[in-house]
Amino acid sequence: MRIAQIAPVWYPIPPTGYGGIELVVSQLTEGLVKQGHDVTLFATGESRTDAKLSYVFDEAPSEKIGQVFPDLYHALHAYERAEEFDIIHDHSGKIGPGLGFFSPTPVLHTLHGPATEDAKTLYKALSKKIYFNAISNYQRECYGDLNFVGTIYNAVDLDAYQYNSKKDGYLLFLGRMSPQKGAHVAVQVANKLNKKLFLVTKITEQHEKKYFEEQVKPFLGKNSEVVGEVDLKTKIDFYRHAECTLFPIQWPEPFGLVMIESMAVGTPVVAIRNGAVPEVIVDKKTGFIVNDSVDEMVEAVKKVGSIDPNDCREHVEKHFSTKRMISDYEKAYEHILELEKSKKL
Amino acid sequence: MRIAQIAPVWYPIPPTGYGGIELVVSQLTEGLVKQGHDVTLFATGESRTDAKLSYVFDEAPSEKIGQVFPDLYHALHAYERAEEFDIIHDHSGKIGPGLGFFSPTPVLHTLHGPATEDAKTLYKALSKKIYFNAISNYQRECYGDLNFVGTIYNAVDLDAYQYNSKKDGYLLFLGRMSPQKGAHVAVQVANKLNKKLFLVTKITEQHEKKYFEEQVKPFLGKNSEVVGEVDLKTKIDFYRHAECTLFPIQWPEPFGLVMIESMAVGTPVVAIRNGAVPEVIVDKKTGFIVNDSVDEMVEAVKKVGSIDPNDCREHVEKHFSTKRMISDYEKAYEHILELEKSKKL
Repeated sequence: MRIAQIAPVWYPIPPTGYGGIELVVSQLTEGLVKQGHDVTLFATGESRTDAKLSYVFDEAPSEKIGQVFPDLYHALHAYERAEEFDIIHDHSGKIGPGLGFFSPTPVLHTLHGPATEDAKTLYKALSKKIYFNAISNYQRECYGDLNFVGTIYNAVDLDAYQYNSKKDGYLLFLGRMSPQKGAHVAVQVANKLNKKLFLVTKITEQHEKKYFEEQVKPFLGKNSEVVGEVDLKTKIDFYRHAECTLFPIQWPEPFGLVMIESMAVGTPVVAIRNGAVPEVIVDKKTGFIVNDSVDEMVEAVKKVGSIDPNDCREHVEKHFSTKRMISDYEKAYEHILELEKSKKL
Repeated sequence: MRIAQIAPVWYPIPPTGYGGIELVVSQLTEGLVKQGHDVTLFATGESRTDAKLSYVFDEAPSEKIGQVFPDLYHALHAYERAEEFDIIHDHSGKIGPGLGFFSPTPVLHTLHGPATEDAKTLYKALSKKIYFNAISNYQRECYGDLNFVGTIYNAVDLDAYQYNSKKDGYLLFLGRMSPQKGAHVAVQVANKLNKKLFLVTKITEQHEKKYFEEQVKPFLGKNSEVVGEVDLKTKIDFYRHAECTLFPIQWPEPFGLVMIESMAVGTPVVAIRNGAVPEVIVDKKTGFIVNDSVDEMVEAVKKVGSIDPNDCREHVEKHFSTKRMISDYEKAYEHILELEKSKKL
């Protein structure tokens, strides 16, 4: 199959630091190449891939994130070549799928973001022409009636995320420095338990700096340590040796890659019930799901010794492996091509 | 001819207050209807037109200005109907022409904005498929090598802008409250001359408020008066009775509707040499063009008595009438249809 993968333009593929969507796009692209497909990745010039790389920006225009021009210029370049492919898989935000509406080649758009009212209205209009997949059933319900071909969970590369059953005594928070991700809650939990906490986080944008200065930094215990963005290997090491990962999510996260990364190496997750969390963690078996309070998280952390690291790993092997994700997307592409064929009859 | 006019989504057509592009789109749309064309105006629901009005937003989403969603949803609605028209004339920003690239119907995009590096890169890429016109020769030179069908100056409705040779002794500034438009310079000029100054202006966005509070308000003389956004009739009255209009423009304005509105009613303009100013004002005949200083403007205002109001009016009648603009656009559409026809041969 001649497949185009359109990545978001804001970070390289794979990401050198922060970038959940970018990691998924990378896994999927490399997996499809290994399956023997003819894959073209539309990303930025410094991306690394075994697919054919096509780009208009040598470097990711991260400093212009959210602006129209980079997003549009990147998507335009991809869709200009639409006729060269059997299917186009678009992971970019709104402008990409907007152009995809006029594509002669069928387009699948993976919903990576939250179902805001604006997003719902736009995607509903695009649904007349393009196909969608959700990344969790929770997200799918939020979006309602779109032209869905299914729910396909994100995945983790089990070869890279090596299992480790021997844990050190620290807690781990991993995520952007944003109130939505709940670093301030993680800090309180660590303080109450008097435990070491590593915060592996991105603090680059103005609002991230403001939140950190005002709501996190003043409360950091002497055992807490803020680590900046790290490379993949270092990140995996943080996961592998943590007693547990805290996922104090403060908004309805549509998936939550952190949870499967953690469980993959055998590290349980203590998470707040929100968004897709109950679809990803098996409560009391691969971690604990609590309601929205610091005290409940504290109590749950005290019990993580009861979780078998092997159960965490097995859960990811079964439901969140890249092998499963790639196979699901291949099936979705084939399904779309069948639907398009029957339309033409 | 079946013509689609795509307005920017941010303000109604015609604008109820601020909105230069919106005024031009309104003039052109109504003029084309009068010429007997079958015109559809893509704008917002509260717009008033004799053309067929088509919209997805009941009210202009002005509070979301600059966001992707309103712009994209509006443009998508228009281009979804592309096949119903012989030509599509797009006045929206970047996303509209981006979708226009994939339109089966030829698209003319009027460049209404400044030639930033990003805009130049994007429009150059779009130039493979869509047509452009500049609104001044200055602007056209800035954009360089695009698929241009010509320069078409903006225009003013001479029936609405009635001539008046009897002036009161006040100065007029009209424009957004932005450093680029130079209200702070107008205030200094009025202070030095100890003359009454009306500032008819928009102060709605955060940066406009900040600029006003910090750089304009503290220097307002007791003879200066800040008037908010006004309706068309009131605006024209301000022009008609002014001794002269100040155009202390601080950036290379690609056209400058204020200058022709003022000259249309017989009111000379004292402007700073920048952007298209020398193409619009005849120095010493319809106003004065000075270099960038308050003192030069002061000296020029002292000499405005030497300008014949009738020369101002005649200059607009000759070069900036809606009749001329509508005829120029009709010719541009016909030229594009010929070019497209010859492409297909």
